[in-house]
Amino acid sequence: MKLARVIYQGRVRLALVEADKGEVLLIDGLLTHDLNPVRTIIERRMGEAELLSAATKRVRFDDITFLSPFSELVRNVFAVGKNYVDHAREFDASGFNATSGGASVPSAPQFFTKATTSLAGPTDPIVYSEALTSSVDYEGEVGVVIGRECRNVRQESALDQVFGFVALNDVTARDLQRNHGQWFLGKSLDTFCPLGPWIATIDQVPIDAIRLRTWVNDEMRQDAPLTDLIFSVPKLIETLSAVMTLLPGDIIATGTPVGVGIGFSPPRFLQDGDVVRVSATGLGELKNTVKIVEALKSA
Amino acid sequence: MKLARVIYQGRVRLALVEADKGEVLLIDGLLTHDLNPVRTIIERRMGEAELLSAATKRVRFDDITFLSPFSELVRNVFAVGKNYVDHAREFDASGFNATSGGASVPSAPQFFTKATTSLAGPTDPIVYSEALTSSVDYEGEVGVVIGRECRNVRQESALDQVFGFVALNDVTARDLQRNHGQWFLGKSLDTFCPLGPWIATIDQVPIDAIRLRTWVNDEMRQDAPLTDLIFSVPKLIETLSAVMTLLPGDIIATGTPVGVGIGFSPPRFLQDGDVVRVSATGLGELKNTVKIVEALKSA
Repeated sequence: MKLARVIYQGRVRLALVEADKGEVLLIDGLLTHDLNPVRTIIERRMGEAELLSAATKRVRFDDITFLSPFSELVRNVFAVGKNYVDHAREFDASGFNATSGGASVPSAPQFFTKATTSLAGPTDPIVYSEALTSSVDYEGEVGVVIGRECRNVRQESALDQVFGFVALNDVTARDLQRNHGQWFLGKSLDTFCPLGPWIATIDQVPIDAIRLRTWVNDEMRQDAPLTDLIFSVPKLIETLSAVMTLLPGDIIATGTPVGVGIGFSPPRFLQDGDVVRVSATGLGELKNTVKIVEALKSA
Repeated sequence: MKLARVIYQGRVRLALVEADKGEVLLIDGLLTHDLNPVRTIIERRMGEAELLSAATKRVRFDDITFLSPFSELVRNVFAVGKNYVDHAREFDASGFNATSGGASVPSAPQFFTKATTSLAGPTDPIVYSEALTSSVDYEGEVGVVIGRECRNVRQESALDQVFGFVALNDVTARDLQRNHGQWFLGKSLDTFCPLGPWIATIDQVPIDAIRLRTWVNDEMRQDAPLTDLIFSVPKLIETLSAVMTLLPGDIIATGTPVGVGIGFSPPRFLQDGDVVRVSATGLGELKNTVKIVEALKSA
């Protein structure tokens, strides 16, 4: 199944997506008061049949707005840097990597996190002030959604722990990424993790057939198969779960392919009004507009 | 006030700590069914008077076991690397920093995170397998607990956003920290974030008087005033909140002083059975025993 949260007639609804028809089935009378229903579906291992039994109405994409499938993240997004060979090279050549240990292509996956508050919906604006950063870049990625609490998972059985996949944009402030050494800060601005429009369960998307593409204002910038990953999805799950317990709803952002803004000379950073689209096979499309604001209000 | 969760007569209780007397006041009939009562107290801004009105019994430290004040973390702990001058130098001299951009003493705070699942109680064992790491190190630290949702806070008013302080041990697998480039993985093993024994509200602890000390088997290894921080608590809050919204219950680990195991030549990593104590003025003491296990069970 493909799970989404949508706004229809002014109300937030849970929905099953029928992507090929451009329609969703609205779910009603099930998890209506749940603050994070998609996470609950994952935790309870609820099946499509149960959800279908509560489907009340078929609605066209034109009549709804997709929200992020999760209303809140369990904890920070786990993300991997430099996980495509050509991107690893473009990143190190850019001069924006203050943390390289030597070789461009890492010998072990480089995990960092994005703050929960960076979560944004699939059509939300990417908002920042130029007082804070003047080098914002896109990173189209495929996210893995963990289905079960697990520890010490081997590669061979790693996909059994996966609930599904989701498109995401690991938006990055390159200057903050460089100046603060560790990458967390430059990756964690509010709105810097657009996620959605839906989560497709693993049975819906043959993992070896996922192709990831990113456009800026209709110019294609990234286009790569997920099979190009240096550290595969099973390897990432094995590595993370050797260290820590993974939880249902955890998201692993698998890395971005070549073609980000700092790969160009001179770099092509995002500008006010730019429209960034990230799409992946079976996972739909994110479409987020860059919105530069004068200065953010104080708390 | 000083807030704790303790086990008394086999049950988990909320408690107010009277540290100078070596006693706690047990709270009963308030937040009894709350899964994370200390977080709720912070979010609801409940005062000491309200809690005192539900105090039922005075009990000596000898008759209780302190748990981590939080039963679960809001999200990953935000932590700062290299925030004491002499520690920054010992770390870079050790050869374990694969991510140095150049100067030992950073020009901007280096933020990384520790996974929520690394949380451990003040007397829990620090557990790991030598199949995973053979270079585990302690890092005594003072943690700042955020009291309010806030964004774009200036240094001048930053302490208004602070609920209180807590001792923590930023336990680190140095080999994983080095091999994975970014620090998140080597910092995030289950049990690698002992926290507690209580949270002292900011009015209880004059921030400029906090002194941090760490012992391994009664040998003092770290001893520094919090005033030695390169980036002060207000500066850390300003920097983080310029980038992201901070949430009630967020924890900022402020960095560790000189004297960690890799500062010695040869390095003195933790060994099975070692007892690590971290204490800070007004914040009590962590006492965690290292437990090396054969291999961790698979999920």
